[in-house]
Amino acid sequence: MPQVLISEVGPRDGLQAIARTMPTPHKHAWIASLAGAGLREIEVCSFVPPKLLPQMADAAEVVAHAKTISGLMVTVLVPNLKGAQAAFASGVDKITIPFSASEAHSLSNVRKTHSQMLKEVSDILALRQSDYPRIAVEASLSTAFGCSIAGNVPEALVVALAEKLVAIGVDEVGLADTTGYANPGQVRRLFDQVRAQVGERCASAHMHNTRGLGLANAFAAYEAGIRIFDSSMGGIGGCPFAPGASGNVVTEDLVFMFESMGVSTGVDLEKLFAAREVFAKGLPNEPTYGMVPTAGLPKGFVPAEGLSAQ
Amino acid sequence: MPQVLISEVGPRDGLQAIARTMPTPHKHAWIASLAGAGLREIEVCSFVPPKLLPQMADAAEVVAHAKTISGLMVTVLVPNLKGAQAAFASGVDKITIPFSASEAHSLSNVRKTHSQMLKEVSDILALRQSDYPRIAVEASLSTAFGCSIAGNVPEALVVALAEKLVAIGVDEVGLADTTGYANPGQVRRLFDQVRAQVGERCASAHMHNTRGLGLANAFAAYEAGIRIFDSSMGGIGGCPFAPGASGNVVTEDLVFMFESMGVSTGVDLEKLFAAREVFAKGLPNEPTYGMVPTAGLPKGFVPAEGLSAQ
Repeated sequence: MPQVLISEVGPRDGLQAIARTMPTPHKHAWIASLAGAGLREIEVCSFVPPKLLPQMADAAEVVAHAKTISGLMVTVLVPNLKGAQAAFASGVDKITIPFSASEAHSLSNVRKTHSQMLKEVSDILALRQSDYPRIAVEASLSTAFGCSIAGNVPEALVVALAEKLVAIGVDEVGLADTTGYANPGQVRRLFDQVRAQVGERCASAHMHNTRGLGLANAFAAYEAGIRIFDSSMGGIGGCPFAPGASGNVVTEDLVFMFESMGVSTGVDLEKLFAAREVFAKGLPNEPTYGMVPTAGLPKGFVPAEGLSAQ
Repeated sequence: MPQVLISEVGPRDGLQAIARTMPTPHKHAWIASLAGAGLREIEVCSFVPPKLLPQMADAAEVVAHAKTISGLMVTVLVPNLKGAQAAFASGVDKITIPFSASEAHSLSNVRKTHSQMLKEVSDILALRQSDYPRIAVEASLSTAFGCSIAGNVPEALVVALAEKLVAIGVDEVGLADTTGYANPGQVRRLFDQVRAQVGERCASAHMHNTRGLGLANAFAAYEAGIRIFDSSMGGIGGCPFAPGASGNVVTEDLVFMFESMGVSTGVDLEKLFAAREVFAKGLPNEPTYGMVPTAGLPKGFVPAEGLSAQ
């Protein structure tokens, strides 16, 4: 078993940040190539009004295709109960609900207070409980490390929200650096604090590379015991609603960091590089990022599984 | 006192990697602006044959000007005894001698074996001892984390070389990731091993961002107790002799990482951003890098000294 799980968010987080729409058959091919590289969890789309994000209008179709890929955990993002109903009906394995730790960001992003968001999550959990008991529900605490509207977000508030979300029944709480404000010391401290209250339910880190600290923050989260990391192929995407925020951690570079540390991801880097070409066919000339794809693997590079076999 | 020392290498490492030569008065102005931003140690040039690196032909003049800046530790790079003689005579505070941990890299770079390099360092130390006792001598173990010619560089070899260099009298040994091969786990492990043998004499980390891990590696080195970090403004430079290697850690991003962690650097970020413009006047249209200068400081950002005062 790989030692960390890289949860690829490019097909959702990346594609919804790009104005053009990738044609559905190209989405199928790209997601298949990502899974073929060894990514075991992919956030394939979001269930949101097509008027708001026309790039995601084919969500149900994308889920149906992704579910044909053996062994793939198919996850989607849903902002509210209506999205959850459609997502559950589509047959996903897991949904992620973004929950802004900054109330100012929540009001700006989904026009809901914390109380209203907790009510929304409760309604989603009730629906899951009654009709879809096998589908996992994650809440992702966005702006957990700072907010481009409010500035500082108190650490005690993030801990309290994580406790409330676990108390009402979410399976997993993630911390997300939506704005690229996080630093490694803060990342370790906040994960330590949240995990002291909710334990392993606080499982995942979603870091941005807006200020270059994405991998340093991922390493700090790993040091704090986190083993699930969101990232996007080519670094596409970010949060379109947080002014000044951009730049997911690049999956290729994140996988390289762990593999070179001897921490197995289950992902084949050469196949991952090849998946970039499948993406480029679906959205020609769209810029992608990544240092390792450009620089190449080090001479004599041995991935984690090879290291442990030596 | 600031908690970490950022040793700016742009005027040497950066300028020697750029084909064009920055005019001497512009070098003076740029170095002054870097010092004015709070950088207390600057590697201002290298003493090498002008035929090899014409960009450094004004080395003595650059040192003379830098020495007029109050409180600045003026350091230079020298590859051999001849360079050291000129550097010592110029009145520097410190010299750094690059020493390839990979013998293949050493042969390719300076055409010397490890034995020959140790002899060269001994000769330099003898000259320092007799004529310039106040000038500090650092050896920088380049390719310490891997070599683009030899691939793997055994950790035991790096430890043994550090021990030898300290035994013959260098004041300080640094570890340099010349090729951008390092990962955070390896960085912490190797610094721990070297420091177990030579203690505080192993003092500095020179990381490259070739594969995006520069800041993660700097954080790992900090975790291992390192408090001196090389970096270059705008990320200019790298090692022109290591094929495929490029990209120093960006000073602006490194300072941001530490300051946002509450670790004081003594550097004013806004003044550092302004120094980029002084550089641009000296080398118009030369590309520079840096995520924080592009994204801007986070809303409500408080530097380390402000944090400790709160």
